[in-house]
Amino acid sequence: MKIIDGKKIANDIKEEIANEVKQIIEGGGKTPHLAAIIVGHDGASETYVGHKEKACTQVGFNSTVLRFEDDVAEDTLLRRVHELNEDSDIDGFIVQLPLPKHISDQKIIEAIAPKKDVDGFHPVNLGRMVIGLPAYISATPAGIMELIERYNIETSGKEVVVIGRSNIVGKPISILLAQKTNPGNATVTITHSRTKNLKEVVSKADIVIAALGNAEFLTADMVKEGATVIDVGITRVKSDKTKSGWKLLGDVKFDEVAEKAGWITPVPGGVGPMTIVSLLQNTLKASKREIYPE
Amino acid sequence: MKIIDGKKIANDIKEEIANEVKQIIEGGGKTPHLAAIIVGHDGASETYVGHKEKACTQVGFNSTVLRFEDDVAEDTLLRRVHELNEDSDIDGFIVQLPLPKHISDQKIIEAIAPKKDVDGFHPVNLGRMVIGLPAYISATPAGIMELIERYNIETSGKEVVVIGRSNIVGKPISILLAQKTNPGNATVTITHSRTKNLKEVVSKADIVIAALGNAEFLTADMVKEGATVIDVGITRVKSDKTKSGWKLLGDVKFDEVAEKAGWITPVPGGVGPMTIVSLLQNTLKASKREIYPE
Repeated sequence: MKIIDGKKIANDIKEEIANEVKQIIEGGGKTPHLAAIIVGHDGASETYVGHKEKACTQVGFNSTVLRFEDDVAEDTLLRRVHELNEDSDIDGFIVQLPLPKHISDQKIIEAIAPKKDVDGFHPVNLGRMVIGLPAYISATPAGIMELIERYNIETSGKEVVVIGRSNIVGKPISILLAQKTNPGNATVTITHSRTKNLKEVVSKADIVIAALGNAEFLTADMVKEGATVIDVGITRVKSDKTKSGWKLLGDVKFDEVAEKAGWITPVPGGVGPMTIVSLLQNTLKASKREIYPE
Repeated sequence: MKIIDGKKIANDIKEEIANEVKQIIEGGGKTPHLAAIIVGHDGASETYVGHKEKACTQVGFNSTVLRFEDDVAEDTLLRRVHELNEDSDIDGFIVQLPLPKHISDQKIIEAIAPKKDVDGFHPVNLGRMVIGLPAYISATPAGIMELIERYNIETSGKEVVVIGRSNIVGKPISILLAQKTNPGNATVTITHSRTKNLKEVVSKADIVIAALGNAEFLTADMVKEGATVIDVGITRVKSDKTKSGWKLLGDVKFDEVAEKAGWITPVPGGVGPMTIVSLLQNTLKASKREIYPE
């Protein structure tokens, strides 16, 4: 078993980005600038946005956080999105989800200009990704692809089984890994709650992507000897062994699967740290007009 | 072996559409109106556009064909697309592909207003389809879904193998069949030229979608007894047995696979006739503002 160290790779990439930003600024270029809209005071959302701000600082980006109370009108939020679309200093921005129930997440997402949609949630970016055009890829699938690439894990001709068909992980990673790219060119099977004989299907996979959101679901008996196992799940459970009283579990029963796997991502420290890095990478691309040239 | 009769289903649906159009007009509604842009004089494109016009007439739609010489400037074409976007009498329109080399297919497609993109090629429609939002689904995958539905072929929990990963068939049909819908909920495997042991993979499938564009590729030894076989391929080959001197072959070696299959689509008369019907269905939806309410 060999650990895919997402934390290390994330730090490496942050350093690379920081160096590039330094060069851009030394060359007289504009400092990349990420904005985030956050509505209400949800603890998890606050934490995520805080991490994103901190990461911006680490790599030398400017960052702006725009806060709204949770009774904000949808129209007010839409107006702010339009202003950000027009603001030439903001290269990209995100709207922290979920939004309060009286606001349509989808309406807000579709109001974001695709060229500034660094979360990659706008249908234009998803659609462009599907047809293999340059696009902002959302954080988790982009992070997985980056880990696979940096660890030189062969995907061409390999059997990949994705467990879970969510819009933000299962579906996009299935498409990305099946495409005529490197990494990519894999034979990809999408599985989900209706899949029969899941154990049989998964046990043939050279690479398993567990993204169903079910703590310690994937056990050793389901995994082929030597398979690469990518764990996307994060479930917070009570623990009397940690100071905080909580611990994080992935979708993979790590200890037993690790003994059988070739490469494996831990939780925490695997895919998780890559997601913020993907957002930084998208923001850098936005500031360089890489995806949507002007 | 039982034949999935695409021709019959296509005719049934045309009748249903014709009846609905009659009711719309009797109710004082506007006649649905499809426009097609065709550039140059390619024989196949002329034929397709001709078929589409004829189908419009059959169901009582208005149709407009806009012809351009193959030296038309990209800007001229873009201007025409913008005019069609604004033309309130045109419910939907298509641009017959491929375009001459000096014009970017993608640029033209992305200029079409998503709400009028009845071919479903605009990234917004693809992206919305991926996340399960209402969207125009392109003709071939929509036609396949319709056949599966009308023949009550069970997909939930079934193993589907898609051969081919094209943007207009393989990728969208993989996503549609894996989604939490009916038809759908299948365990879907996307295969392609880099897939190893294709025979082994395909031979486990309950449903095979052959969409690689390789005449008579799928042979009986690759197919499980009783499997449903959907043939998307159309290759024109010389024949001394037909009056025209040509015949059409699918991706499936029909005679031998038919003996082993449960349900099977013939070529011609299977998926083919459904594609124009899908376009009519999308145009009707456009005229009713079903996908993009105003």
